[in-house]
Amino acid sequence: MKEKFYKYIQNLQDTITAKLEDVDGKATFKEDVWERPEGGGGRTRVIENGAVFEKGGVNISGVHGALPDAMKKYFGVEEGDFFACGLSLVLHPNNPMVPTVHANWRYFEMYDKLGNIVNSWFGGGQDLTPYYLFDEDAKHFHATCKEACDRHDDGFHIKYKKQCDTYFWNTHRNEARGIGGLFFDRCSETEDMNMQNWFDFVTEVGNSFLQGYVPIVEKRKELEYTREQRNWQEVRRGRYVEFNLIHDKGTLFGIKTNGRIESILMSLPPHVQWHYNHQPEKGSEEARLLEVLKNPKEWI
Amino acid sequence: MKEKFYKYIQNLQDTITAKLEDVDGKATFKEDVWERPEGGGGRTRVIENGAVFEKGGVNISGVHGALPDAMKKYFGVEEGDFFACGLSLVLHPNNPMVPTVHANWRYFEMYDKLGNIVNSWFGGGQDLTPYYLFDEDAKHFHATCKEACDRHDDGFHIKYKKQCDTYFWNTHRNEARGIGGLFFDRCSETEDMNMQNWFDFVTEVGNSFLQGYVPIVEKRKELEYTREQRNWQEVRRGRYVEFNLIHDKGTLFGIKTNGRIESILMSLPPHVQWHYNHQPEKGSEEARLLEVLKNPKEWI
Repeated sequence: MKEKFYKYIQNLQDTITAKLEDVDGKATFKEDVWERPEGGGGRTRVIENGAVFEKGGVNISGVHGALPDAMKKYFGVEEGDFFACGLSLVLHPNNPMVPTVHANWRYFEMYDKLGNIVNSWFGGGQDLTPYYLFDEDAKHFHATCKEACDRHDDGFHIKYKKQCDTYFWNTHRNEARGIGGLFFDRCSETEDMNMQNWFDFVTEVGNSFLQGYVPIVEKRKELEYTREQRNWQEVRRGRYVEFNLIHDKGTLFGIKTNGRIESILMSLPPHVQWHYNHQPEKGSEEARLLEVLKNPKEWI
Repeated sequence: MKEKFYKYIQNLQDTITAKLEDVDGKATFKEDVWERPEGGGGRTRVIENGAVFEKGGVNISGVHGALPDAMKKYFGVEEGDFFACGLSLVLHPNNPMVPTVHANWRYFEMYDKLGNIVNSWFGGGQDLTPYYLFDEDAKHFHATCKEACDRHDDGFHIKYKKQCDTYFWNTHRNEARGIGGLFFDRCSETEDMNMQNWFDFVTEVGNSFLQGYVPIVEKRKELEYTREQRNWQEVRRGRYVEFNLIHDKGTLFGIKTNGRIESILMSLPPHVQWHYNHQPEKGSEEARLLEVLKNPKEWI
């Protein structure tokens, strides 16, 4: 399974970066291949200063070896070996009318001393962070997520949409990071789903990513915007930074396990602002966005 | 002691904000007085878009009540009441030739069920974060710290300078946030120092703040700078954000104990940049700064 999924994310990285370069039309992804001293490595691909994408990364990694201390603590085990691989992407567009998107699909195996798999699971999801809210875009993104889920289990979409709203919650601001999407974790063998079923589900979701995001980008990338709207985008990007550095398990995990810092922090936006007690005007589009972020809604 | 120290920081806030307004010459501090539902409150003073200070806050707070869960866990106690007060300041100047400065001086009391003090201590310090390194400025700042320390104990300066370098360390970048200053914590009664002695020490340090920082601001605030130097400042401010949101105990503590979020996060810089794998040119002034941040030095 690990070879199969790693091969899948390698191909998916190629597909996604090729399409995004095509959408951007100006910038291309720069590749850094890196090795982890303790085992494994990754292929980081970053795009910067594009016509559409101000900054973004579509990274894969496959790492293995003895469980680092932080992971032993997290999983509550004394010792053991692990394998983990995944694709992580974040895209920060120039235009505040185009939402930021994040996605991650991953696979994990844990081994006993003899090298037998004691546990394995898939995890992942994708979520959208708009700066201005176009209801039809939100509906399209969530509809794509639902379609991928529905092919595998009628209950997945409701469950994983809800988990997404819960996970990407900035507790210290009492608001969501964005308008959500899907979030699933620890997807292990059950009565209904064996690991091949999970593989089919996760790859279905991964394959749907471009279809969920690209039409939104195409529709909004040429829209005009003001300096004030750009400022709002940069202020909201500040909340993105706050979530990733304070709450995001993946980021903190990467930092604590001595991951490749530039690959982990590629998720941070290129230009960000923090002002004291910034509040949008009542009745404005900005205020409407905040309202939705404070009360996540069902889009479909 | 608690009334005495709270009165002290109230006066110090007045002195510091008055002097900084004077230095800035354009912007003034806006005041927000707030109350903590569980007991106490604070007086937040923020300056923005000044001639010298792009953003800054000089805040005091005095809070009390039952120990919040996060504090009980931190202190390893089952229950109890507490009182905590302090002054926190962060100043982010416009000009990259002027360093950012941070300071905090605080006093804490913990009580048993009957309201008796079971423990009390002072803590605090100040530290400088330059974007361009002027050795004479670094020496001046540390000399002022040393002078205040030396009046109380010959060993304080070496000890607290070292603790500062250790505390403000961005482990995930393997570099210091800035060039340090002083950091002391849990200053309780000892054979040599009773609480009045600690009060005298902490207030001596607090009183020396303006003398340590203002001459540097005056000397550098009119220096010319390029767009590239400003970009470098904004990139380095990203490291400041990373430290505060990932590592700073005070910030995380405030967030976990449901503190007033806008007062806590006033420390974040107004304009910040993150670029993938940003590296200064070999032999440049920017590279020289990084060298010092990776290997904290003795300035006096």
